[in-house]
Amino acid sequence: MISLEHANRIVGATLEKGKALGLKPLTVAVLDAGGDLVAFARSDHSSAMRPQIAMGKAGGALALGVSSRTVGDMAADRPSFIASLGPISRHGVIPAAGGVLITDGNGTLLGAVGVTGDTSDNDESCALAGIESAGLKAKN
Amino acid sequence: MISLEHANRIVGATLEKGKALGLKPLTVAVLDAGGDLVAFARSDHSSAMRPQIAMGKAGGALALGVSSRTVGDMAADRPSFIASLGPISRHGVIPAAGGVLITDGNGTLLGAVGVTGDTSDNDESCALAGIESAGLKAKN
Amino acid sequence: MISLEHANRIVGATLEKGKALGLKPLTVAVLDAGGDLVAFARSDHSSAMRPQIAMGKAGGALALGVSSRTVGDMAADRPSFIASLGPISRHGVIPAAGGVLITDGNGTLLGAVGVTGDTSDNDESCALAGIESAGLKAKN
Amino acid sequence: MISLEHANRIVGATLEKGKALGLKPLTVAVLDAGGDLVAFARSDHSSAMRPQIAMGKAGGALALGVSSRTVGDMAADRPSFIASLGPISRHGVIPAAGGVLITDGNGTLLGAVGVTGDTSDNDESCALAGIESAGLKAKN
Repeated sequence: MISLEHANRIVGATLEKGKALGLKPLTVAVLDAGGDLVAFARSDHSSAMRPQIAMGKAGGALALGVSSRTVGDMAADRPSFIASLGPISRHGVIPAAGGVLITDGNGTLLGAVGVTGDTSDNDESCALAGIESAGLKAKN
Repeated sequence: MISLEHANRIVGATLEKGKALGLKPLTVAVLDAGGDLVAFARSDHSSAMRPQIAMGKAGGALALGVSSRTVGDMAADRPSFIASLGPISRHGVIPAAGGVLITDGNGTLLGAVGVTGDTSDNDESCALAGIESAGLKAKN
Repeated sequence: MISLEHANRIVGATLEKGKALGLKPLTVAVLDAGGDLVAFARSDHSSAMRPQIAMGKAGGALALGVSSRTVGDMAADRPSFIASLGPISRHGVIPAAGGVLITDGNGTLLGAVGVTGDTSDNDESCALAGIESAGLKAKN
Repeated sequence: MISLEHANRIVGATLEKGKALGLKPLTVAVLDAGGDLVAFARSDHSSAMRPQIAMGKAGGALALGVSSRTVGDMAADRPSFIASLGPISRHGVIPAAGGVLITDGNGTLLGAVGVTGDTSDNDESCALAGIESAGLKAKN
């Protein structure tokens, strides 16, 4: 399981990366491997639904065992299938980049981070920077 | 926050506009900026799901910070992404015109109105007439 | 089915009764016999959960075919049974006075009104005044 | 609305207070006045449901406009009524101390903090310390 210390580093470094890149205000959620929330921050001036989107990117990645970018690719191929998963998933399933699985150096799954607020590509870049800053690995 | 007096004016003027244009029976919901219902009316002979559609237009506009017409444009570009938001949104997210954000003269967000019953374009026209009648502004 | 005209009269007269009695700000919901919302108003300075409580009083009354006062009596006798109904009921089931079934002069069920904001007894008094003002009958 | 900076201070100071008192691992959630999550942390070795309990204490306080300690007092008097609110409340309604409303110096409601992990009394003590540390006020 991911520690609060690691999760807080991911949240902090993700937000810093967003500021360094001049992005729109970001929201970041870190879930453990069981899908329970560990750490979270929503930047000022974010729109109301950002918490659910951040958790839905991370939760969907955990639910399907791939990044939310790959969930997006799956949705392009099989839109009805991916849409059907949302109502039966604890945090929903958001098919857009920004949700990334977190592993330790040995490939053990620790959890997932979900980022939202700017473009999906930028959200994902910040998520990857956050994971790296904590000394952990993103699962490809 | 929007007052009940303002919300009732929006509801009343929206319904009057629909009658003046000879539209099908309309349903109108006004939510405050936090997404809580303030005023609501469903015309006689409306179908059963109209309350949820009206709230889903207004609630989706609040969730994403744009009109439900713009949500519809987003859904045309990214259908799976917009579809994924419904199950994790309090009132759902309806991607069709008729949900309009309400501001005061200074740009402060007060809430949103959602209208359904006729074509989406006509629903939106009546929503805009309702907001104007209350002396408030639609957010573009 | 209850007409919007009748439902609006009930909402308006219920709020007026509350003001005449100097009660706290009231929230009023009128559902049709199928449980769909017809008319609604939330007074300024109400707490956030009032819409759900008003609909939960009216919806619980419809669900069990008695007033929400009687639902409260049932809950005193069988608390676990009544508590179990909330999660499977569309609007929840609130076991407190203020939700009243509405009939026409011939005993036909038209819908229900739910009122919240002051004491349950006062909420119910206003609901009864609202129904009477519309020329309809409360089901005992 | 409460800023992320304030919310993060509340979370950090609440956890520090828990450590200083030698309490069990705490979970802390800060919601804004509309009930949306702003900042969150769950200490290592917490049980799985702590996120929902923390949000249910804060969310119940916001829903009813009182502390979750007072919600607990209400539940002692009217158990079925308070139990009925959970299923229709966005974050549930937890009737136990540890959820505290947050105001600025002028009495404006900014949001609520929910704390769980130790006894309810200790949870609440830490919540109060967190709010004070951020230079804000608990609503009595």
